[in-house]
Amino acid sequence: MIIKTIKELDAQLAPYRNEGKTIGFVPTMGFLHEGHLSLIRRAKAENDIVVVSDFVNPTQFAPNEDFESYPRDIVRDEELATSAGADFIFHPSVSEIYPEGSSTFVEVEGDITKVLCGESRPSHFKGVTTVVAILFNIVKANKAYFGQKDAQQVAVLLQMVRDLHMNIELVVCPIIREEDGLAMSSRNTYLSDEARKQSVVLNQSLLLAEGVFNNGENSTNKLIKIIADKINEMPLAEIDYVSIYDYPSLKVITKINQQALAAVAVKFGNTRLIDNIILKRI
Amino acid sequence: MIIKTIKELDAQLAPYRNEGKTIGFVPTMGFLHEGHLSLIRRAKAENDIVVVSDFVNPTQFAPNEDFESYPRDIVRDEELATSAGADFIFHPSVSEIYPEGSSTFVEVEGDITKVLCGESRPSHFKGVTTVVAILFNIVKANKAYFGQKDAQQVAVLLQMVRDLHMNIELVVCPIIREEDGLAMSSRNTYLSDEARKQSVVLNQSLLLAEGVFNNGENSTNKLIKIIADKINEMPLAEIDYVSIYDYPSLKVITKINQQALAAVAVKFGNTRLIDNIILKRI
Repeated sequence: MIIKTIKELDAQLAPYRNEGKTIGFVPTMGFLHEGHLSLIRRAKAENDIVVVSDFVNPTQFAPNEDFESYPRDIVRDEELATSAGADFIFHPSVSEIYPEGSSTFVEVEGDITKVLCGESRPSHFKGVTTVVAILFNIVKANKAYFGQKDAQQVAVLLQMVRDLHMNIELVVCPIIREEDGLAMSSRNTYLSDEARKQSVVLNQSLLLAEGVFNNGENSTNKLIKIIADKINEMPLAEIDYVSIYDYPSLKVITKINQQALAAVAVKFGNTRLIDNIILKRI
Repeated sequence: MIIKTIKELDAQLAPYRNEGKTIGFVPTMGFLHEGHLSLIRRAKAENDIVVVSDFVNPTQFAPNEDFESYPRDIVRDEELATSAGADFIFHPSVSEIYPEGSSTFVEVEGDITKVLCGESRPSHFKGVTTVVAILFNIVKANKAYFGQKDAQQVAVLLQMVRDLHMNIELVVCPIIREEDGLAMSSRNTYLSDEARKQSVVLNQSLLLAEGVFNNGENSTNKLIKIIADKINEMPLAEIDYVSIYDYPSLKVITKINQQALAAVAVKFGNTRLIDNIILKRI
C-alpha cells in the first residue's frame, strides 16, 4: 500500500502503535533490487509491521550529480516490496519531507564523513543524516535496516544514532550480489554491456586482497596496491578511491590490527560504483 | 528527585510511559529563578509528570565565554523545582550527554541563527539545537516549555522541530521580570550594585519603543534609535545590538507590518544581558 503523506502514515500506523506492535523500517531511494528485498525480509522476520520508504532524497545529491536521472519506478517497487513483506510503502513528495523554508541539518562531523565517499561527495552524508533523522521521526520505528554495501553510511548513521541518543536500533545486513559478484545497486542499470562485464572487478579485487590478508599481510599500503592494480586491468575502470580504514571508526591505519574496511569507488563512464569488504583477524 | 543518568531516568519514567501518562519537559541550565519556575508550574498544570533538566551545556558556549563560571547550585535548584511541581530533575554529567568522540550536530542554517545573538555568538545556536535535540530524544516528552525571554532561541527551536518533524509540542511562556522590570536571568547575579540599577534600562527602552509604536510609528530605524538613545543614557551600558526583525521568521524589515520582535543585548562590564518585546498591531 503506497502512502504519500505523513498524516496518512500516522493514521495507518496508529492502531498498530496503540496495540504495542513493533515497527521495522527500511529506508530506500526506490528502484528496489534484491539487496533492498533482503532488508525488507529481515525486517518482516523481526517486526510485526514493516514500513519501506521510497524517496529519492535531493539533499544527498550535489548539483552535478544524478538526482534528476536517478532511476524511479514506484509501481514495480510496490509490487516487489509487498511481495517481500512490506506493509506500507511511504512515498512522499519532496515538499512533504522538506516543507518550504526548511533549513535544519543533522551532520556528523570529523574524518568519518570526510574520507572515502566524503572526499568526492563532500555534502553527501549531511544530506543522508538529515533525511534519515527526519524519516526516523516520522516513522517512529523500533528498528531500521541498512545494507553493508553502504559501509560508510552505516558507520556514519551508527555514530549519529549514538551521539543524538536516538531511540532506534540499527540493523546492518550483508551485501547482496549478482551471480558474478557485482554488488547490487540501482545504479547498475546505467552500465553499458561492456562496462557491466568489467564491473565484476570491484568484487574480484576485494576478494583478492582478502586472500592475501588471510595469508598474513597486514600492510594497508600493500593491500591497497593489490586492489588498485587489479582494478586497473580493466580499460573502462577509472578509480575514484581504493582505501582501507579502521572499522567502524574509519580512522587512518597503516597496519590492520583487528578489523578494517577495504572500500573502493570506481567510475565506468559517468556511473560510479562502490563496493567493500570487512577484513577481520579471527 | 535528582537523576544523573539516562538509564536511571528511563527506569523512573517507564511506569508512567506504560500507563500513558503525559510528560512535560523544562530544559534549563540550572540556577533557577522565577522565570524557570513559571515554566515548571505551567508544565505541571498541563502534564501528569514534569521533568526538568539542569545541565550547563558546553557546546553553546564559545571558548571565551562563561561556561566554567556559569552559576551552579543543584541543591537549591532541586528544592525550587520540586516546590514548583517538578517530579524529576535530570542533572547529567557532560560525558553522559556527549560520550567520548561525539561529533554529531543539529544546526538550523540561514539568517534566523545569524542575526541578533548569532552575530556575536556564531556557534551558540548550533550548541542549543544539538543539546535540545539530544534532550528531546532522552526525555521523550509530550510538550517542552521555553521562555519568550530567549525569543531567538524559541524561533530557532520552532524551526528545528518543524524541519526535522520532531514529535513534540513547544510551549512558549511569557518573560518573568523583577519588580523593577529587569528580565529574570541566571546571569543577573554577575551584576554590580550600580550595574544592577542601570540594567532596568533594557526593559524601559523597549517599553518606550512600544509606546511610540502603539502611537503609529512603523519605521524600524526610528524605533531602534529610540531604544538605543535610551540605553545610552546609562554610563555602564554598552550596546551589543538593538534590532527589530519580523517575528518569528527573523527576516529583515524596514516597516513593521503585522508583528515584529524588538530585541536588545547590552553589556555591563563582562555581563551580557538580553531582553525583548513583541510589537504587534491589533
